[in-house]
Amino acid sequence: MMGRSWISFITDYGLEDGFVAACHGVIARLAPDARVIDVTHLVPPGDVTRGAHVLAQTVPSLPRGVHLAVVDPGVGTARRPIAIEAADGGFLVGPDNGLLIPAAEALGGIRRAVHLRSAPDASRTFHGRDIFAPAAARLAEGADPASLGSATADLVRLPPPLLLTLPDGFTAEVLTVDRFGNVQLAVAASAAPVAVGVAWSDVTVDGRPAVAGGTFGDAAPGGLVVFTDSAGYLAVAVNGGSAAALLGVSAGSHVTLRVR
Amino acid sequence: MMGRSWISFITDYGLEDGFVAACHGVIARLAPDARVIDVTHLVPPGDVTRGAHVLAQTVPSLPRGVHLAVVDPGVGTARRPIAIEAADGGFLVGPDNGLLIPAAEALGGIRRAVHLRSAPDASRTFHGRDIFAPAAARLAEGADPASLGSATADLVRLPPPLLLTLPDGFTAEVLTVDRFGNVQLAVAASAAPVAVGVAWSDVTVDGRPAVAGGTFGDAAPGGLVVFTDSAGYLAVAVNGGSAAALLGVSAGSHVTLRVR
Amino acid sequence: MMGRSWISFITDYGLEDGFVAACHGVIARLAPDARVIDVTHLVPPGDVTRGAHVLAQTVPSLPRGVHLAVVDPGVGTARRPIAIEAADGGFLVGPDNGLLIPAAEALGGIRRAVHLRSAPDASRTFHGRDIFAPAAARLAEGADPASLGSATADLVRLPPPLLLTLPDGFTAEVLTVDRFGNVQLAVAASAAPVAVGVAWSDVTVDGRPAVAGGTFGDAAPGGLVVFTDSAGYLAVAVNGGSAAALLGVSAGSHVTLRVR
Repeated sequence: MMGRSWISFITDYGLEDGFVAACHGVIARLAPDARVIDVTHLVPPGDVTRGAHVLAQTVPSLPRGVHLAVVDPGVGTARRPIAIEAADGGFLVGPDNGLLIPAAEALGGIRRAVHLRSAPDASRTFHGRDIFAPAAARLAEGADPASLGSATADLVRLPPPLLLTLPDGFTAEVLTVDRFGNVQLAVAASAAPVAVGVAWSDVTVDGRPAVAGGTFGDAAPGGLVVFTDSAGYLAVAVNGGSAAALLGVSAGSHVTLRVR
Repeated sequence: MMGRSWISFITDYGLEDGFVAACHGVIARLAPDARVIDVTHLVPPGDVTRGAHVLAQTVPSLPRGVHLAVVDPGVGTARRPIAIEAADGGFLVGPDNGLLIPAAEALGGIRRAVHLRSAPDASRTFHGRDIFAPAAARLAEGADPASLGSATADLVRLPPPLLLTLPDGFTAEVLTVDRFGNVQLAVAASAAPVAVGVAWSDVTVDGRPAVAGGTFGDAAPGGLVVFTDSAGYLAVAVNGGSAAALLGVSAGSHVTLRVR
Repeated sequence: MMGRSWISFITDYGLEDGFVAACHGVIARLAPDARVIDVTHLVPPGDVTRGAHVLAQTVPSLPRGVHLAVVDPGVGTARRPIAIEAADGGFLVGPDNGLLIPAAEALGGIRRAVHLRSAPDASRTFHGRDIFAPAAARLAEGADPASLGSATADLVRLPPPLLLTLPDGFTAEVLTVDRFGNVQLAVAASAAPVAVGVAWSDVTVDGRPAVAGGTFGDAAPGGLVVFTDSAGYLAVAVNGGSAAALLGVSAGSHVTLRVR
């Protein structure tokens, strides 16, 4: 029970309808002492990859507990509802479409997984309210995951993002673009093909000159800076502007960084 | 007191200003142990009908308590501030402009209503902060509604949405369109002029072919599906797309469904 | 400790990323009993002035506690992280760029300020998570501000908004425009160059006829009304419309009001 009374919650439900609140209500009824931290509900509709990245990069800052995630374009079809116990002792609940795996890895890996039983009166279009939130609430209340369904091991995984090493740098997929237009690359700084640092005499990003730095202000106003972001990835920003706009990229685009 | 320590909160205040937080603050001061579930604050400005539908469809999932609703284009004019005690023992607080009635009905009907007294120092433009949130907080703390104003019975109601039965189907008003573009019709599935089901050999929605199904994936990708949604209404969706965009409709539009 | 277990939270982080939740998570870990009221996270990116006004106008409604504010275009540069103890016994935590001062004044003024020590492992781009949220959580838990850094007095302040008295009125800067298009002027009603009231036989706003009133409905539909808003400022609204759109103004614009 200890360490399970926090529930984090991420969806693509948006903030204009009552869907998020309905799930909060279900949790309030089943686990009235649990406290919920909303991660975001503005994942683009059906964008499982985006949801997976946002959750994985946020869980290290969240208290240990249950992470409820619903980005679920296949709701009501054959895709399975699952719960994962992570190595940190916390849980992840959501659809078996790859959404939960990166966050589970950020929590130390998967200890076990269960295929959640559906309630007989569950709707076929709102599993957040009818299957996932109830399961999250029960886990927060201390339920054994084995009581919620049957053990499973064969989980769906998202394809890994592109990362191509070049003689003088790399081409990498854009993982995410944040509100400020900062462009996060699918390159953990600790495992970058080229070490980012002050030793670089010259860096280009998609052919544009950039500086290596530690924060936005290390570039001249309007200038590009390559840095290690707060999640530990290589990222590209513009001091006082939007790197995504300058480079014309969005999540899934490819960016080439070269060092001389 | 038991069962009243939850407050749900819906407005058209938006999320860019401090209005929602000011109401949360008033509640925190007057009822520090109450917990607040935000339903949505993105009701289009002044759209009482939309606010009423979202609240009515969400309250069945919320814990019993106080439901605070402020979509109030007539703030500061002669329209009355009210509180309603619903048949489930919960309360609804807001302006007397029809906003609260559908939710009260979803909670089993109206047991009694009071015309809220105004504080002498209430502003004339922010009754959410100055009249409604304080009343909700006091009800959450166990106050008798009779202590907050005088009994009233004559409440304003919204006009019922259009529903016209045809020989082979019906024309119905669109109640709401959600973030995914799903189109909810003003037809409770349990009382539909035509039964929705697999027996249909042919269905059209505004002349376009559709299938009857249980979830989005029952239509081919890009195809229309008519289903009973999670609130119990007939709804129209596109598998992997937006029915609202395909049909060119929004809340208040009319949609014709025919069965052969 | 009493009176410090509430934390309010305002940023320009937006609601699409996990940044806000990461800060909530840090607070949950360090001050699990503190309760957080989100003011807004939709301050336009880097708009310190807007953030300062929204916070200052909301704090009077919030419970006494810690107010965490992060609108911080200079993150990671020489600008200092600070905490302010306000005269009401509450605290404000954020960057030393002027953001906190108007709210401190709304809480009775500044009692003392400290320059927050940075943790050695703090990122250079996410001080909300790594410096400000931890400091806010510790203050909420009862920490002495002196334990978080060194006393400082020389704080950065925003330039005052323009207010120019004319023989028959004034020209004032627009402080904020809210979701409804209401235009708030940088003129406290209690200190206006001209008294707003029913004695006015004629008022114009940027040359357009207006009425003095108490609420939106005091103007004819579509008409302009000048009133004292819920924060105590002179404001201009359109009954059933947007004054900002009608006047073509936004925050920082200048509006001229004349009385005859």
